[in-house]
Amino acid sequence: MGEDAGRDFECQKIMDGKVNSGNGSEKVVPPCCLKARASAPELEAKCHSTVVSGWFSESQSTSDKAGKKVYFNNPMWPGEAHSLKVESILFKEKSDYQEVLVFESSTCGKVLVLDGILQLTEKDECAYQEMIAHLPLCSIPSPKTVLVVGGGDGGVLREISRHSSVEHIDICEIDKMVIDVSKKFFPELAIGFEDPRVNLHVGDAIEFLRHVPKGKYDAIIVDSSDPVGPAQELVEKPFFETIAQALRPGGVLCNMAESMWLHTHLIEDMISVCRETFKGSVHYAWTSVPTYPSGVIGFLLCSTEGPHVDFFNPINPIEKLDGAYHHKRELRFYNSEMHRAAFVLPSFLKREVRLLRDSAAPEQGTHIS
Amino acid sequence: MGEDAGRDFECQKIMDGKVNSGNGSEKVVPPCCLKARASAPELEAKCHSTVVSGWFSESQSTSDKAGKKVYFNNPMWPGEAHSLKVESILFKEKSDYQEVLVFESSTCGKVLVLDGILQLTEKDECAYQEMIAHLPLCSIPSPKTVLVVGGGDGGVLREISRHSSVEHIDICEIDKMVIDVSKKFFPELAIGFEDPRVNLHVGDAIEFLRHVPKGKYDAIIVDSSDPVGPAQELVEKPFFETIAQALRPGGVLCNMAESMWLHTHLIEDMISVCRETFKGSVHYAWTSVPTYPSGVIGFLLCSTEGPHVDFFNPINPIEKLDGAYHHKRELRFYNSEMHRAAFVLPSFLKREVRLLRDSAAPEQGTHIS
Repeated sequence: MGEDAGRDFECQKIMDGKVNSGNGSEKVVPPCCLKARASAPELEAKCHSTVVSGWFSESQSTSDKAGKKVYFNNPMWPGEAHSLKVESILFKEKSDYQEVLVFESSTCGKVLVLDGILQLTEKDECAYQEMIAHLPLCSIPSPKTVLVVGGGDGGVLREISRHSSVEHIDICEIDKMVIDVSKKFFPELAIGFEDPRVNLHVGDAIEFLRHVPKGKYDAIIVDSSDPVGPAQELVEKPFFETIAQALRPGGVLCNMAESMWLHTHLIEDMISVCRETFKGSVHYAWTSVPTYPSGVIGFLLCSTEGPHVDFFNPINPIEKLDGAYHHKRELRFYNSEMHRAAFVLPSFLKREVRLLRDSAAPEQGTHIS
Repeated sequence: MGEDAGRDFECQKIMDGKVNSGNGSEKVVPPCCLKARASAPELEAKCHSTVVSGWFSESQSTSDKAGKKVYFNNPMWPGEAHSLKVESILFKEKSDYQEVLVFESSTCGKVLVLDGILQLTEKDECAYQEMIAHLPLCSIPSPKTVLVVGGGDGGVLREISRHSSVEHIDICEIDKMVIDVSKKFFPELAIGFEDPRVNLHVGDAIEFLRHVPKGKYDAIIVDSSDPVGPAQELVEKPFFETIAQALRPGGVLCNMAESMWLHTHLIEDMISVCRETFKGSVHYAWTSVPTYPSGVIGFLLCSTEGPHVDFFNPINPIEKLDGAYHHKRELRFYNSEMHRAAFVLPSFLKREVRLLRDSAAPEQGTHIS
């Protein structure tokens, strides 16, 4: 690849809002990046004045019978919006940390929204929850102790509980309202809390981790909301250092890691911090989640120094775990092939994110027989 | 997998709008499927009355300077919409076949819209064009003669021209206005027409194929718009039969094949028709295209009877073709790993589309070393 390949890359420049300063080292937080700017989510959520927001401006008229259609406008980045028709608003309250909204959509089932950002829909939560849980847990043999940071809806717990080797699951969620709301409106996710191996800690994850014995966990899954509001600290270096300390040698972290189509600068930053912190391996994976911005979401998979973890090839394949496929409800998205495919990256991502160039799954080697 | 696994599959039921009749054989064209219903695209494109459509209702006030924000509302399916902010409308005219709209968006570059359906944006066209061209061409050794059906924007031609083995490219596009508009507004795509190997035929593809000698092509790529309006015939059996006749033994077809999150019934129908018609192999692949409905698009890869085609493992890898990577512009999305990964299917798709169960890439076998 030529040195100036990136210069011709209009596609990516448009995405990242970069100004080409000619020295090849520009690093501007792109204007498109709502998440990076992390400001006034309420304001952003109704930034499209032509879209009636079912939540903010028109919650009183939420029924079709009233003859008025109401939409929830999920802000993706300025200039683009994804709208869902609201059938009825089921819950809307301010917790100590954020605004919590649940509505019934006309085509995606029930929807959970925190501070104006869509968190999950019943239609496609399977893709996110299954991938964020099984990518790490299927990459190590017989995981026993697992920590979930965030994940108050319970969906990740539901997925972890498919692993019969797991003996102890801690979950640290800061906002009790999210848990309560999930138990009321999302029973298929909150079922995760019913597993007797689950220990719920309501509180701040940073504080929680301070009291965790070194090397306690085999796996930690960070299912946080975007780095806006309560989750802001969860993308900073001290947090990752605390995580690394809480993992056993050769333990694994799976962290939500933004969209490759929108936030290559954030991805590069996260990888950079994690490479400094985790001395095992650090890799990027992605999957399709239609209702998330740009229709994809990424994951950062990291392992601490110790026994080598080959994230690309699940050593603990879900298909071989007794009863895992149908535990509570059948797997809808994840399988071992999807696991491997999640690490395969498009050319632009390897070009844009320097740190992914040498570490990505090699060009040759995958052979589907 | 249990016999009744599909019954519990709320996720998919919501998507497909199926009513469970209890006999397991229900087959209702889902109410969510705008494309299947193929009616009044203009009407659908402004069906969200709360979204001001830059195209239909407000084309006279398209500038921010006028103090009014204008959005193009891309209809996905009732209850959901994807909106792009319109900076300026560059072209808007009715051809003999459809409405052709080009606008400058604020974050996705220029956008082409036909009959109210978004066809491409400069931001993410790379993913679609590269995959639809190289999935078939990298699956056979030294392709020489290629036909493109549709593809009037020229993007697929740009990709085909990376293959130096190709000697002759026919393209049959029904709507000359699409070609002219692309030459004016999308030079990075229309550059495909400048290749001296390209022979342009403006006209009906069915008619064109009637005069093609049997077995003429090594590969045919159908880059049609959705089966609404001029492209309606292009998903029916007689069309596929004509295609199969025009291919040499062991020749390949790549056909746009909808979203796995939205249109499993259409996918099943297309596979069923193609299995009857193509006696080699028939497989489904998919990729991420953020501005398409649900953020993904699928492809149907078919081969005629003759030398076996292993679509899963490119026999003609792009990385080994002299100059292919940088021809005209660098590859942004496709690589051989992405090729293999495109055939890996989520569990729900294999469950829902019966015909994909036995033919999909096997659970084990992909090994990234």
